[in-house]
Amino acid sequence: MLSTTARTTLNRSKERGRTDRADLYAVLDAGLVCHLGLVAGGSPMVIPTGYGRVGDTLYLHGSTGARSLREAAGAPVCVTVTHVDGVVLARSTFHHSVNYRSAMIYGTLRVVEDPAERMEGLRAITEQLAPGQWDALRLPDRKELAATAVAAVSLEEASVKTRQGPPKDDDEDYALPIWAGVLPLVVSWGTPEPDPALPPGIPIPEHIRNRG
Amino acid sequence: MLSTTARTTLNRSKERGRTDRADLYAVLDAGLVCHLGLVAGGSPMVIPTGYGRVGDTLYLHGSTGARSLREAAGAPVCVTVTHVDGVVLARSTFHHSVNYRSAMIYGTLRVVEDPAERMEGLRAITEQLAPGQWDALRLPDRKELAATAVAAVSLEEASVKTRQGPPKDDDEDYALPIWAGVLPLVVSWGTPEPDPALPPGIPIPEHIRNRG
Repeated sequence: MLSTTARTTLNRSKERGRTDRADLYAVLDAGLVCHLGLVAGGSPMVIPTGYGRVGDTLYLHGSTGARSLREAAGAPVCVTVTHVDGVVLARSTFHHSVNYRSAMIYGTLRVVEDPAERMEGLRAITEQLAPGQWDALRLPDRKELAATAVAAVSLEEASVKTRQGPPKDDDEDYALPIWAGVLPLVVSWGTPEPDPALPPGIPIPEHIRNRG
Repeated sequence: MLSTTARTTLNRSKERGRTDRADLYAVLDAGLVCHLGLVAGGSPMVIPTGYGRVGDTLYLHGSTGARSLREAAGAPVCVTVTHVDGVVLARSTFHHSVNYRSAMIYGTLRVVEDPAERMEGLRAITEQLAPGQWDALRLPDRKELAATAVAAVSLEEASVKTRQGPPKDDDEDYALPIWAGVLPLVVSWGTPEPDPALPPGIPIPEHIRNRG
């Protein structure tokens, strides 16, 4: 079950709320980029960044030279992952909407110091972005590890909202001669583009060519 | 030209920064959903929501019953729009990356009171989500307008970051027998799905069927 704190309990459109932890995992595991919200100098800051999940921990990384992760260590953060599935075209402007799946996680940013957990976090972040790559690549060396900050956020306090299906119009609007429905947004992988610097004879690995 | 305040000036990866206001418009105009960051009870909150642009003003809307827009009135916000264009597959985990275009806007949330500007904002938000719909639909009535909060953020302070192209690996890694390149992420419109409640004989309008 997901948390039931005040800020993860929906006040409106309650029918869009999901309460199962599996729904949270599904939204997170299907994403590439999250939006990390933190407070910097009293103002909010929303940063798009990669992430990875291990159990009930979300991992983020950044350069040790970047202000954002450093300043947010120990501070409250909000991480949001959103998938847009389509545009909901209603008969009135008021009921126009979006079909989506989104997760919001509230927590405190913990800077990961333990070398094994740091490596586990980096592995999760890489595999989220490009499944199958971690075992195929040159892994981070000491210098690269020193330049990389790894941070963790617990998935304890989180909410999931989804909207799917056709528009919900006002009763009297269904008689209007206006087309209504959903225009789906389709996200798919294109054809892999080899690095021009690639030597000849290196085939595209199966996990990249047939990524699901 | 875009702003050159401390928080919109890149400290790292400066080559990814764009300084032309047209780049900001291009990122915003291509999006469906932004991530609105605000501070609620001392903690950051990141909300996915629709938006629209009129000149150098970004419009947002919400229910007058929702806490978020109401609490953020007059407060600093950050609005981020992100497009993921592909996964950058390097020869090392360290240089794995994402091709993307993103805009971050820092401003103060202004609640729009003027009826004409409110309508202009709602039109921009609807047209961003579904171009061509505003003139085809039943427009908001008095009751709906009373239930809708419209807010504005100036685009004065904003930054744009993009990354495109193949991976940039360490010199010595180019000799590794590892495939490298870009796996593009392709976002396209699917086939419109008519509302099951639609009476027969209403064709799919051109602006929905052939949306670019």
